[in-house]
Formats: sequence, C-alpha cells, structure tokens
Amino acid sequence: MKYAVPGIADEEFIRGDTPMTKQEVRILALVKARISAASTVVDIGAGTGSLTVEAALLAPQGRVYAIEQDAAALDLIRANAAKFGAANVAIVAGTAPAALAGLPAADTIFIGGSGGRLAAVADAADRLLKPGGRLIVTAVTVETLQQALAIFAARPDYRAEAAGVQITRLRRAGAKHLFQANNPVYLIACTKGGPQ
Amino acid sequence: MKYAVPGIADEEFIRGDTPMTKQEVRILALVKARISAASTVVDIGAGTGSLTVEAALLAPQGRVYAIEQDAAALDLIRANAAKFGAANVAIVAGTAPAALAGLPAADTIFIGGSGGRLAAVADAADRLLKPGGRLIVTAVTVETLQQALAIFAARPDYRAEAAGVQITRLRRAGAKHLFQANNPVYLIACTKGGPQ
Amino acid sequence: MKYAVPGIADEEFIRGDTPMTKQEVRILALVKARISAASTVVDIGAGTGSLTVEAALLAPQGRVYAIEQDAAALDLIRANAAKFGAANVAIVAGTAPAALAGLPAADTIFIGGSGGRLAAVADAADRLLKPGGRLIVTAVTVETLQQALAIFAARPDYRAEAAGVQITRLRRAGAKHLFQANNPVYLIACTKGGPQ
Amino acid sequence: MKYAVPGIADEEFIRGDTPMTKQEVRILALVKARISAASTVVDIGAGTGSLTVEAALLAPQGRVYAIEQDAAALDLIRANAAKFGAANVAIVAGTAPAALAGLPAADTIFIGGSGGRLAAVADAADRLLKPGGRLIVTAVTVETLQQALAIFAARPDYRAEAAGVQITRLRRAGAKHLFQANNPVYLIACTKGGPQ
Repeated sequence: MKYAVPGIADEEFIRGDTPMTKQEVRILALVKARISAASTVVDIGAGTGSLTVEAALLAPQGRVYAIEQDAAALDLIRANAAKFGAANVAIVAGTAPAALAGLPAADTIFIGGSGGRLAAVADAADRLLKPGGRLIVTAVTVETLQQALAIFAARPDYRAEAAGVQITRLRRAGAKHLFQANNPVYLIACTKGGPQ
Repeated sequence: MKYAVPGIADEEFIRGDTPMTKQEVRILALVKARISAASTVVDIGAGTGSLTVEAALLAPQGRVYAIEQDAAALDLIRANAAKFGAANVAIVAGTAPAALAGLPAADTIFIGGSGGRLAAVADAADRLLKPGGRLIVTAVTVETLQQALAIFAARPDYRAEAAGVQITRLRRAGAKHLFQANNPVYLIACTKGGPQ
Repeated sequence: MKYAVPGIADEEFIRGDTPMTKQEVRILALVKARISAASTVVDIGAGTGSLTVEAALLAPQGRVYAIEQDAAALDLIRANAAKFGAANVAIVAGTAPAALAGLPAADTIFIGGSGGRLAAVADAADRLLKPGGRLIVTAVTVETLQQALAIFAARPDYRAEAAGVQITRLRRAGAKHLFQANNPVYLIACTKGGPQ
Repeated sequence: MKYAVPGIADEEFIRGDTPMTKQEVRILALVKARISAASTVVDIGAGTGSLTVEAALLAPQGRVYAIEQDAAALDLIRANAAKFGAANVAIVAGTAPAALAGLPAADTIFIGGSGGRLAAVADAADRLLKPGGRLIVTAVTVETLQQALAIFAARPDYRAEAAGVQITRLRRAGAKHLFQANNPVYLIACTKGGPQ
C-alpha cells in the first residue's frame, strides 16, 4: 500500500466544493471507530469520500458502504476510491434512513450528515449496528451536537463519549509561523451494548 | 457618539485586503490598555485603523498616533478615522522604531506589527511609554509571541501577562448554527514600572 | 475609582467554591452589553458577583439587580460589592423568573444561570427589557447554548449574534510559558427590537 | 490483544503525578509517527509511558526504547508496560542526548521532553533516525514550539508540518454537557530526507 493509513494528507484527496473532514479529525474518527481488517463499515453522508477511503484501506477484507445523495459528491467518492485503490467501497446513492435498507449488519457506522433527520438516521443505524459495534457522529453545528448527545444519553444500551477537536495549523510565512484555526468538529463516539 | 465603543462591529470598518484585528480581540486589547479620556496612545502597525479608531473614540481629549508603512493601509486608516469622526487621530507614515522619533510620551502603546524588529520597536516604545503606562503586543505568529514573552520577561521593570484568544463564531445556516473558528491571537499586556 | 473597569483581575474578587466567569469573558460580556452611566442592569444567576460589580462600576448613576438563589453566592456578592465600593448593587435572593417580579425596566439583562428554565427566564427577561436593550446569555453547556440560539432565532424582534470564547493563559514555568486552556464560554448577545 | 490501539482510554493507564499526554493527542502523535509492526521507536521523555506502551503494541515485532530520568516516572513506565503486556519496551534511565548513546537506528523518534536541551536532543535524534524516518515533537510551551519550528525549518533535509490540538471534553452534568477544555498541545511532525 502506498499510503500510510489512517493519516492521508488532505491535499492527496480529489476535492471539489464538497466540504471535507480534515486530516486530524479524520484520524480521530477512524481510530475511535476501532475498524479491523474485516470490518463492515457504513459511512452516512460520505461527502468527498475521504473517511470512506481511509476506512476501506483499514478494512481490506471488509467492505465500506458510502451513503451520499449529492451527485457531485458521489463522483468524488468514486474518484477517490479509484485513486487510492479502495476496491472494497460500495457506493449507495440516496439519503438515510431510506438508503440504509438492505445493508448488512455493520461493525462501525459513521454519521457525518443526516439532512436534519438525525433521530431517524440514528434509529436506522441502530438496527444495522452489531452489538459491541461503534457509532461515530461528527457534528459541525450546535444543533447536531446537542441532538446527538440527547439521542445517545437517552439510550441505556449505548455508552457515549464526546469531545470537540480544534486544530490550529502553523503556516510558514517567511521566517515566521502563523496560527491558523480550522473550524472545530465534535465527535460523539458510542459503543452499542456494553462497556467501551 | 453614534457608535458604542469599544465594540464596533467588524463590518462597520472600511476594509481592503489589509488584515484586521477582529472585534472580540480588539475589545480585549482596548480594555486591557486601560485608555482614559485624555490618554495619549500610539498604535504601531495600525493596519486598517480599527484599533486606532476605537482608541481615539475612547480618548476624546487625547490623541492617537497611528504608525503604518503600507500606502493602502494608510488610506484605510484615514477613511476609517473620517467615517467614525475620530478627529484626534494623527497618522504617521513610516516604520517603527524610526517613525516613533518626535512622538510625545504615551500612556498606552499597541504593537500590532513590527516588521521583524520587535526588540528594537519594544526598546523605542519603552522610551516613549510613561511610568505606569500600558503596552499591549498582539501576536499572530509563534515567533512574535515567543519574542514578546522573552523581551518582557527580561525587563524587571515590566509586569506582563499573556493569553491567547480563540473566537468561534456561530454562523446561522438554515435552522442550524455552524461553529466557525477565527484564527487565535495572543495578547501580551504589560504595565511599565509597578504593579498591574 | 481605584480599579479600571471593565477588566478587574480575577484574583481581586473574593471567591469561594462558586464558579466565576473569568476576566476576558467578563470583559466581552460587559462590552457587548453596552452599559452606560445610568443603565439599569439585571444579572440573573449572579454567582460570585464579579459581573454584577463591574456592571455597577460602569453604571455609577444606574443600578444593578443581582438575582441569585445560593446562600454562599449571595454572601460573595455582598462581599464583592462592598470591596469594590459598588453601592448601587441591589441583591435579590431567589430564582428567576419569580424573582424578577417587581424589578424596573432594564437596559441590559445578563442571563448567566437559569436552573434549567431558560425559556421561562428569557420570557420574563423580555418583559423587563426596554426596546433597544441588550440581553446577554453566557452558556457553558451544549444544551444552554442550543436552547438560547433556538429561543432568539424564534423571536423576530430580537437580533442575536453568538460566539464562543476560548482563552489560553500562558503560565510562566521557569524560563518557559505553558499553554493553559480555560474552559470555553459562549456568549449570545441580543438587541431587542431593532438593528444591533 | 485486549486493548484497541491506538486509542487506549486515559483512565486505563496507571498514573501518578506525572503529566500524561491525553488520548486524542496520543492518537494523533502515534498515527503521524507511521509506526509499523517491526518499527524501532525511541520515546524521549517517556513520562507515564502511555505513548511508549501504545507504540509498543503497534510494533509487536519491533522495540520501543523509553528514555526517562525521573524515578517515579520510570516506575510508571514499567507498571504500564506490564499492565498492557508490552514486552518489547526497553527502559533507559537517563537524560537525552547522553542516554541515546548505543541505541540502534530508529524508524520513529518522539521528543516529549528535552529538559531545555532541545537543540542537542534533536541533533542526537537525527543521528539515530533512519532516512525516511519520522520525528515527532510534542510541545506544551511557547518556547519549545518556537524552538522546534526553528530547528526543523533550518534543516533542508527535514520536511516538517505543525499543528496545535485543542480538545474540549463534553462532561455530563445532570441533563447537560459542560464544555471542558484540555490544554492545547502542539505536534511538530517531520520526515527525514525526502517528501512526507
């Protein structure tokens, strides 16, 4: 494999105008997801496919289902899967929860976008997620963060921990290094049914 | 006065491509500067003049000297001083420390830019600053931050405190609010000769 | 006046175990509140009274009503008002919204704590707030932040802006300066009825 | 293996008063280090051994040399290596650069502490590091950050990238979640001799 995963640099991915989870957040989401070589992974709201591709490279004997509704994003996912040789990516065009019907039981589910239907998406994800599986929500709005915390606090069979990640890049400018902030992203990481 | 100061909104200022200290950082710098109605203030590296203008409005019986070398920025300072009716702004075209020659003793000095000559600028500022006066350095690079801390830690007659300020705006997007980070800025605030 | 306001150092305040809004957040809340010399201010959930005291010193011809239910905190408010000579502080023991009954119309209202009744407290605050007045909510939890954003987004007569403030102190340790983070606080600042 | 690595929870490690790199920062340092199964790793200033242990579990056919001078910390490293079954940890009591003498060529070197001798430690680390190897400095002070940036910017054979990591935990308190900031840590990640 020519790329060290997780940790592919952001600029390696083919990108359009679709927002992309940045490298450090992607690393933390992937590690907290505890993906193993044969994992079945579902990435809901896959966007550019950066998380999908790295998950696929971490699970060479498994499969990653990338759920995405936006046509331009679907093209990016295909292009990135091809660029990084991730043959085990299955692209599902559509929106969750409907698009989750027919998927196999999953070891890990990422929810990166839910189009305002987080409660319904989380319910559908729960039906798909194996006991002991990991569910990771990435939130970039106050409302998604609050809703995710409420959903998982209300489920006695889930154990959740949550943290915000704020990365400040140091960009070289002449002899100096400028502090440049990335937008914060919150990760809500859950284990279904049992200790984390 | 038609604007509440400090705290003029960023979008009220006339701006070009010149970087501007954002509202919350400007508020903290101005408050930590302890400007009073008759203060003499020097703003080194005045940029768009946003700090200059608010300092001038806080010191209606005083005077604010705005030191700036960039022609486009000088125009912005003039335009902003005019827009906000800050008649007590004196613009000095040039670079510190040379441009500080001939200025009167100051109650407050801001160092927002030093063109890589922070040690020399701080020396010149010290000669200008009254005992008990306030000196505020704003740093947006690691190197300026480190150098400012070293300069003032080495002066037994200065008491310095320093803090980074990271503002995250909540930008409305439909029914949600996105977390959007501003770049962090560090404020090194000193009192010359005596307790803070 | 012996203290420059706003901007009294945290360690100047008499403190118990009551959590206290830290200096930079206090400065930003006070400045965004646009208090003038004769303002009537209400501080709901006044805690140690640090915000109350600085508001009172900014409004020497006005009055600040400090609403607080905790006995230990009430003692701290009294002690801090006395220490800083803020004779224009009126302490109201009780909980909002009930404790707001009988207060005069206010120019500025701070909501620092609402005991889980934010919607009712905001309603009562709205009845007290003069047109053009400022209402500032400080939120240290995801839920309060989300709820405050929802409440004010739903009121067409309020204009709100919101931002998180993360302060990183630089604490001297030998020849070095450690980065030490304060907890982030979110400020939701509103103007009632009209442009900000 | 009973623990998923990287990503062991902080509370799983045996800890004394020795400061410990927190989980998310540890994950990012380990991933950016690109450790493989047979890597030789050197952890300079190993502290509690949390990074050492996770590196050792990531390199079961390799070896991790933990350099540490503090007696209490050495005990913690031993205890943690035993707890997590990391038999491939070699503990070296002493201080860098002296303690690095006699170590084998390394694929990855972490510099977590250098006792004020960062330039000398980086020189010794460079002699140990294989071409293409990874060197990761974690900095918690302004001065270490500035010095690390200067050292690697001055080496044409190193490619460095740097970023600050600020984690905000969401701690459940009743029905709410408090924002609680961890101190920021800066990671300077370098590749020796060649593209990253």
